[in-house]
Amino acid sequence: MGKQKIINDPIYGFISVSHDLVFELMEHPYFQRLRRIRQLGMTHLVYPGAHHTRFHHALGAMYLMGQALETLRSKKIEVSAEEAEAVTIAILLHDIGHGPYSHALEDSIVSGINHEQLSELFMDRLNEIFQGRLTLALKIFRNEYPRKFLHQLVSSQLDMDRLDYLNRDSFFTGVSEGVISSDRIIKMLQVYNDQLVIEAKGIYSIEKFIVARRLMYWQVYLHKTVVSAEGLLINILKRARELFRQGHPLFATPALQQFLKKEFTHRDFKQDPALLDTFAALDDSDVVAGIKVWQNETDPVLSDLCRRMMNRNLFRILIQPEPFSGELINRYREAISSQLGLKKGDVDYYLISGKMVNNAYHSTSEKINILFKDGTLKDIADAADTLNIRSLTETVEKHYLCFPKEVVL
Amino acid sequence: MGKQKIINDPIYGFISVSHDLVFELMEHPYFQRLRRIRQLGMTHLVYPGAHHTRFHHALGAMYLMGQALETLRSKKIEVSAEEAEAVTIAILLHDIGHGPYSHALEDSIVSGINHEQLSELFMDRLNEIFQGRLTLALKIFRNEYPRKFLHQLVSSQLDMDRLDYLNRDSFFTGVSEGVISSDRIIKMLQVYNDQLVIEAKGIYSIEKFIVARRLMYWQVYLHKTVVSAEGLLINILKRARELFRQGHPLFATPALQQFLKKEFTHRDFKQDPALLDTFAALDDSDVVAGIKVWQNETDPVLSDLCRRMMNRNLFRILIQPEPFSGELINRYREAISSQLGLKKGDVDYYLISGKMVNNAYHSTSEKINILFKDGTLKDIADAADTLNIRSLTETVEKHYLCFPKEVVL
Amino acid sequence: MGKQKIINDPIYGFISVSHDLVFELMEHPYFQRLRRIRQLGMTHLVYPGAHHTRFHHALGAMYLMGQALETLRSKKIEVSAEEAEAVTIAILLHDIGHGPYSHALEDSIVSGINHEQLSELFMDRLNEIFQGRLTLALKIFRNEYPRKFLHQLVSSQLDMDRLDYLNRDSFFTGVSEGVISSDRIIKMLQVYNDQLVIEAKGIYSIEKFIVARRLMYWQVYLHKTVVSAEGLLINILKRARELFRQGHPLFATPALQQFLKKEFTHRDFKQDPALLDTFAALDDSDVVAGIKVWQNETDPVLSDLCRRMMNRNLFRILIQPEPFSGELINRYREAISSQLGLKKGDVDYYLISGKMVNNAYHSTSEKINILFKDGTLKDIADAADTLNIRSLTETVEKHYLCFPKEVVL
Amino acid sequence: MGKQKIINDPIYGFISVSHDLVFELMEHPYFQRLRRIRQLGMTHLVYPGAHHTRFHHALGAMYLMGQALETLRSKKIEVSAEEAEAVTIAILLHDIGHGPYSHALEDSIVSGINHEQLSELFMDRLNEIFQGRLTLALKIFRNEYPRKFLHQLVSSQLDMDRLDYLNRDSFFTGVSEGVISSDRIIKMLQVYNDQLVIEAKGIYSIEKFIVARRLMYWQVYLHKTVVSAEGLLINILKRARELFRQGHPLFATPALQQFLKKEFTHRDFKQDPALLDTFAALDDSDVVAGIKVWQNETDPVLSDLCRRMMNRNLFRILIQPEPFSGELINRYREAISSQLGLKKGDVDYYLISGKMVNNAYHSTSEKINILFKDGTLKDIADAADTLNIRSLTETVEKHYLCFPKEVVL
Repeated sequence: MGKQKIINDPIYGFISVSHDLVFELMEHPYFQRLRRIRQLGMTHLVYPGAHHTRFHHALGAMYLMGQALETLRSKKIEVSAEEAEAVTIAILLHDIGHGPYSHALEDSIVSGINHEQLSELFMDRLNEIFQGRLTLALKIFRNEYPRKFLHQLVSSQLDMDRLDYLNRDSFFTGVSEGVISSDRIIKMLQVYNDQLVIEAKGIYSIEKFIVARRLMYWQVYLHKTVVSAEGLLINILKRARELFRQGHPLFATPALQQFLKKEFTHRDFKQDPALLDTFAALDDSDVVAGIKVWQNETDPVLSDLCRRMMNRNLFRILIQPEPFSGELINRYREAISSQLGLKKGDVDYYLISGKMVNNAYHSTSEKINILFKDGTLKDIADAADTLNIRSLTETVEKHYLCFPKEVVL
Repeated sequence: MGKQKIINDPIYGFISVSHDLVFELMEHPYFQRLRRIRQLGMTHLVYPGAHHTRFHHALGAMYLMGQALETLRSKKIEVSAEEAEAVTIAILLHDIGHGPYSHALEDSIVSGINHEQLSELFMDRLNEIFQGRLTLALKIFRNEYPRKFLHQLVSSQLDMDRLDYLNRDSFFTGVSEGVISSDRIIKMLQVYNDQLVIEAKGIYSIEKFIVARRLMYWQVYLHKTVVSAEGLLINILKRARELFRQGHPLFATPALQQFLKKEFTHRDFKQDPALLDTFAALDDSDVVAGIKVWQNETDPVLSDLCRRMMNRNLFRILIQPEPFSGELINRYREAISSQLGLKKGDVDYYLISGKMVNNAYHSTSEKINILFKDGTLKDIADAADTLNIRSLTETVEKHYLCFPKEVVL
Repeated sequence: MGKQKIINDPIYGFISVSHDLVFELMEHPYFQRLRRIRQLGMTHLVYPGAHHTRFHHALGAMYLMGQALETLRSKKIEVSAEEAEAVTIAILLHDIGHGPYSHALEDSIVSGINHEQLSELFMDRLNEIFQGRLTLALKIFRNEYPRKFLHQLVSSQLDMDRLDYLNRDSFFTGVSEGVISSDRIIKMLQVYNDQLVIEAKGIYSIEKFIVARRLMYWQVYLHKTVVSAEGLLINILKRARELFRQGHPLFATPALQQFLKKEFTHRDFKQDPALLDTFAALDDSDVVAGIKVWQNETDPVLSDLCRRMMNRNLFRILIQPEPFSGELINRYREAISSQLGLKKGDVDYYLISGKMVNNAYHSTSEKINILFKDGTLKDIADAADTLNIRSLTETVEKHYLCFPKEVVL
Repeated sequence: MGKQKIINDPIYGFISVSHDLVFELMEHPYFQRLRRIRQLGMTHLVYPGAHHTRFHHALGAMYLMGQALETLRSKKIEVSAEEAEAVTIAILLHDIGHGPYSHALEDSIVSGINHEQLSELFMDRLNEIFQGRLTLALKIFRNEYPRKFLHQLVSSQLDMDRLDYLNRDSFFTGVSEGVISSDRIIKMLQVYNDQLVIEAKGIYSIEKFIVARRLMYWQVYLHKTVVSAEGLLINILKRARELFRQGHPLFATPALQQFLKKEFTHRDFKQDPALLDTFAALDDSDVVAGIKVWQNETDPVLSDLCRRMMNRNLFRILIQPEPFSGELINRYREAISSQLGLKKGDVDYYLISGKMVNNAYHSTSEKINILFKDGTLKDIADAADTLNIRSLTETVEKHYLCFPKEVVL
């Protein structure tokens, strides 16, 4: 590289950017926008340190990729300079399609296309801009490159994405249950028959990694207050969209207006290249600035929901293993309607139901394989010396119901 | 308290809220808004982890206050329940007057009133809302309460504010030079003749604290790229204000519009209570959302400056111990004008000069006093066994000059 | 207390000694000797940082006890000053009966009495010395005090002993798999029907704690090289004892000589009070100094074993789920005999077999109970939302066989 | 390397051994003995975590050397494979001459030769054993190799030795004042005119490093209780030697006996190769085992001093900037004699006086040079923007006087 670029990271110390092209990609506005999109959306309402961004996570995953390549090369797995650059780019850009509050937006105003599709659109666009220099990175990302382990470093149950986000989200939330030994896991990586595997002596680090992931789901990603806040956000955006479509003029940034006015599909994005740039103009500030102003809107539902969000007066949330009965839901519906004096059609904005799903380890596809000294491979679920990992392959579901705190049956 | 409230903090582990009134204050929109205001403004452009908020810092300082009170009480310094609540409130609210990018706004669109005055306005308003229950807290904050050490816990060279922000800013930036032993410093606190002092065996922890503060100034608060980014932000806001006043309609949230349109003084805030609520509606998102939209404004200066900011294409910054000569500045002025094709009047938006001041320890007033076993008190600058602290009482000044990277003499 | 005593701890920051009697006990030679006994015996041969002592662990457990009492009192569980002092003493002294390399000595030269019995002897002796001031502490320790939760703080599956040692052993070994949220677990403690329980929202911290314990067993306490080193140590001490009893004079400290010469039972300790003082004179240095000198002994077995230990030329260890067959063991026996040129009777010093047992959570007695909001209690194994904890109640056994590296079949 | 060797380190995570020869040296008994020698002697009496060994520090310094080489090579400083191996060996062995409680022994029973001389003797011996394969390492160690910066990595004010011990001693004591950014300092290393220098943007990390070193001297290395304990240890050893030479038989390991009986010089070590092996047989356990047994010796002075040491009943220590007057010393001498009933000749064992010297930065030779972008070099003392570093070039002296706590004037 012409000039060495080093970035301070509170988790890994220093992150070096090792390829010129990687640095140029980082400087592109499509990537810079990730500086303004929080990794964990509304989670900072529960864990006030959780303001870290998708930009920061992408850098962290890139750092771990560098470590992984160094380990593999030290074990005589050849990785060419081109492959190293490409896999680094692939991990850097793996989440570039995320917009602000991604999951909430996909459930409300950007429901015609998902972030995986958007990531590919961004990567294709960048590949054009950089005149084909991302072609190999894209092949690896799409698992179209013959050496499959490179794709697995980017996307699998043991990819650099997960290793970074568990550590990073733990660090910024302060939830120590999610801390994993990424350093040790990476040192135990190996390639066997073109598969990314873990050497046998890393088995307990993997056990801990799977448990850490499970615990982070309950304590952070599916924390009840986070789920309640996201539900409220979805309803705010749905209401705003409805008002917009009814011709009610609302304050919003131009980019947000466009998505409030109309639903776009993957096809729309393909047909109108400018649409991707409009999407790229969105970040957390569009949403927050909107909600703040909408607190003073004349529509009573929108203004009320927005005030609740801004002042963290979130809905109460009930959680249980089985689905809530239709009867109970109806009773809440009526209580909400009568106690808050709402029109029938508006009750849905005040009653949210859904399902949380936590699956710590998927044993069906893309298993984590352990490599024993005798050359045998075993799925970690079978390799562990108790059934605990196997039991973590079960999907755990919880059902929830949210409504304003002041509503009582 | 009716219900115990515990908040996760990645630095101290858990922060408990120990008084009902404190919890109610935290829930007030005036305080909740601090969740949306970063402690370090644009610093995340250099240190990507630095997205922590003024809300989080206020909680941290409150936690340290609890530790300090516990230490003092264990040393038989009586602090009544009322005093404890009041001093806790005082530290919680000490920075409540900060708006988004405070220093930049005070240098551009909110120059008629400073954040200290705003803090007092907010506290007075809250005292009304809470029917006088903040009166003692306000007395302590304003140093009108007889027991002076309580004020010193809130505001002095050894206050809980500094102890928290050095640790917190170090943690989130990853700059380990700022880590201090707040735990140890607090354990060494004592009160002597109604003054907050440090026991002699804490002398080296204080020495480290002063050095850490000095280093954090150079490495974080006055980091050259941060200074350059803040200069750019100031010029963006100044340009936007100028355009607004010329009648050029610009996108902006209603609250931001109000401050772009007109300059308000302390007197205005006193006379129009609604103004404080307008100010309270501002946060980082108003500024970011504005700048993003202004990238596409027709005014070439505004749109260019905003694009530079959004894509982190910041001005180059020169730094030297002595002021830049008028001659050099003129040469840059001409180069900018000719090379960028700017009108004379617009050159000032592209040339920023100023002075950085770093004073690690002030020996004139509010010294840090060391209490020796024989009962004598000494200023830390005299108590240290070398002249190094004394030399840190000197103010270090550096002068800077910023301009677009592409400009050459 | 007359004078406050504060001790630096790299894990918790500062440990304060809160009772005069506790401080006097810490100063007693019976307690000071723990400064010279490593918590993890020979483990530093694998993890070079693991030189922390039983003294340090006892202080750490005492610190956590203080945190636990503070939490319980804040939840309106009354604990009198006498009870607090007593339970603090009980945890401080809970392991005072440990000698150097406890487990190895109990398997070789001090096999007539175990460390639990010795702990009680030391406590009874200290109670005499301190004129009965430890009576309540002893009642709690022996579970003879009516308030059972106090005993559970000292000894149960959730006691302060375990919380400290998992954290401490992780810290000094650098094995991050054992880090637990002791801070959070303690904050979730509650007393219900005189039982120590965990509030429902701490359920995932307990899950992590149980998994961490399991992983620390495999990665540290039962690490294969540690097991091999302990086996070698046992054989060295057995051989030395045999030589001693055959009248072969060996260098040894006077205290160690006494235990090499004769086997003592609990009854001997009861009848001869001086014996406890002889035992109290033993620490790691007696054993290490002996082994070093024995490297040059004329007995070829003893000198060879000692040289292997000192130069970390440890036995190879084979591990498998099922017991090793008698036939295989015989083949190794013969190989050792012929390849090392050993007399038949000496082969046993070069062949070690045994069983490792790892049981992360015992569900039979002293369960960890989770307290739900509706007042119901559930064993954590039943309360978890998957079967993973239940599967960790299974005992995992592994069998091992150790012999010199140079021996081949 | 045939087999990769990885060692867990709680500070750096994992330390890899990168050369076969290095691994063989680590396995040699001369190096393994460092496992039984604490880095900080008696310091664990003040900081109970400080049991880390010279073995562990040597590994840590070796790890940092690897980081430094990686950084320099990334900056196009060529370092050949042979040079890399040699400089790694040089740092690994830099302190191999240390015996147990080195400073105390050099002031008592091993006063005819110092640890630097012993290190060279060990290295020469190892070079013989390894048939000349350490020749280049020795040249670098002795600064006889043309490329001077390699020696500076091993021994200078910025060597890997200091970088590791400040971090390591901070970690194990829990004294956070000593934590330095070794990671950042190493990233700023550069070679200029064959000198090891620091790039200008690392200037504040160096400032912090110098201050950290100063603070660690006062808080750890010269902590008053540590100084008192070392004084007591010296007097114990002196007394034991005197008794030995008077023909009084004392328990001691054979190796320790030899050094108690006779004073050896550098010449003796040169003439009798076996002497080095006797020295190599010494470690902390010889000294501790001796002192424990001597508690029961008939000589009242020796037994009393040893009991004080074992039960941490250390001498009181007075500290002042100027030397203690002869008159005061005499008054203490008489008080000790009369109050403890001592013979005149024995008083010296109970009265210790001396001088502590703390010099954070030496500006006379081997300066730390800062490399500016324009290619100029400046001593850090001149390059800092205040006089604080310059003031730290002053040597600070304190005088101390130790005597039993029960003695009063």
